[in-house]
Amino acid sequence: MSEQAAFLFDLDGTLIDSVYQHVLAWKEALDGEGIELSIWRIHRRIGMSGGLLINILLRDTGLELEPARIERIGRRHAEAYLRRVGEIRPLPGARELLAALTDAGIPWAIATSGRMETAEPTLGMLAIPAGVPIVTRDEVRRAKPDPDLFVTAAERLGVDVRSATVVGDSVWDMLAAQRARALGIGLLSGGYGTEELDRAGAYRVFDDPEGMLAHLEELGGRR
Amino acid sequence: MSEQAAFLFDLDGTLIDSVYQHVLAWKEALDGEGIELSIWRIHRRIGMSGGLLINILLRDTGLELEPARIERIGRRHAEAYLRRVGEIRPLPGARELLAALTDAGIPWAIATSGRMETAEPTLGMLAIPAGVPIVTRDEVRRAKPDPDLFVTAAERLGVDVRSATVVGDSVWDMLAAQRARALGIGLLSGGYGTEELDRAGAYRVFDDPEGMLAHLEELGGRR
Repeated sequence: MSEQAAFLFDLDGTLIDSVYQHVLAWKEALDGEGIELSIWRIHRRIGMSGGLLINILLRDTGLELEPARIERIGRRHAEAYLRRVGEIRPLPGARELLAALTDAGIPWAIATSGRMETAEPTLGMLAIPAGVPIVTRDEVRRAKPDPDLFVTAAERLGVDVRSATVVGDSVWDMLAAQRARALGIGLLSGGYGTEELDRAGAYRVFDDPEGMLAHLEELGGRR
Repeated sequence: MSEQAAFLFDLDGTLIDSVYQHVLAWKEALDGEGIELSIWRIHRRIGMSGGLLINILLRDTGLELEPARIERIGRRHAEAYLRRVGEIRPLPGARELLAALTDAGIPWAIATSGRMETAEPTLGMLAIPAGVPIVTRDEVRRAKPDPDLFVTAAERLGVDVRSATVVGDSVWDMLAAQRARALGIGLLSGGYGTEELDRAGAYRVFDDPEGMLAHLEELGGRR
């Protein structure tokens, strides 16, 4: 394993401005099953594994559901999200940041708690070069805050995850980074506050990919 | 002016679970005018005066717009929000909290940066007794974070605003409370983080109206 610096990116809220559509798609999926939950509670669970998200939200409401219903809520979420995908755009600086890393020969990958079904339409907005590893929830046993997604992404790059930096917008990214012994950079573009990301272990926090790009050289972003 | 304790409530995100719909309605209104803005930046401006929100967002983007266009964006927002209003519900404990205050004979009012046009459909969900003052953006020169809305609400109750407690979900509520020399209670139900509300001057922070109701006696909530 190389000790080369590498960047492992979350997708939703980190590279793509899609968190609020995911939130309302989960809300719609839960409403459809007669489960009433405040929207901010859903927002604070976005970025973790969908199965875990549903389980924890249900525990909050005192409900317990059979696997078939959890599966159905996940499917309703995917449908509701894909209906909204046309209004979704990359975050400012996302394409430029990835291109800067590629140009500098610094390895990077994408690791998302989402499934390929919902990730694919927005991945297409990022002009990702061939050969960049993209790890989705379909490929690992456990999604965030477990470290599996980032560990797998680092393996595909051939780098030691302990020399990599995770970039994410959610507390779950920062916790997964700590569990993988990677560094974590937090971005505010998913709607968490600075202090929430700090407390979860972020060593730097920026507004969005554009803000991170302006500081890339301070972050190991040199060849 | 009486020095009786009184509670002055914000509406959206404080009593009604409507912040995320407002956010995406502003997004749609700005997109409709060809103005691209990240959604989290809109979220962080929700709760302030709509005119101020548009002005500051435009300054962030380096644009400056004539009043007619600002007016048009506001109208598009109202239309987009009213289209979503059917999916909106009161927050957990909102009706119970207001009823507990009414039963205890503690004066309370609602003061919202929104206009009556967008507030009315959700006010109807709260079973507000006759005589409770409701102050909207239409009635004051300046909305939050200026203190006018809360000052006017206290006047209508016949209480000194300096003995009142403002309850809100946004940094703008807490800042307006400070400017009025009222106390501020922050609720997480609008999607801000605890520390953001703390830093803006909240003296207590709860999850939502239900969380506040459980602590009402500690907050001056006795006859």
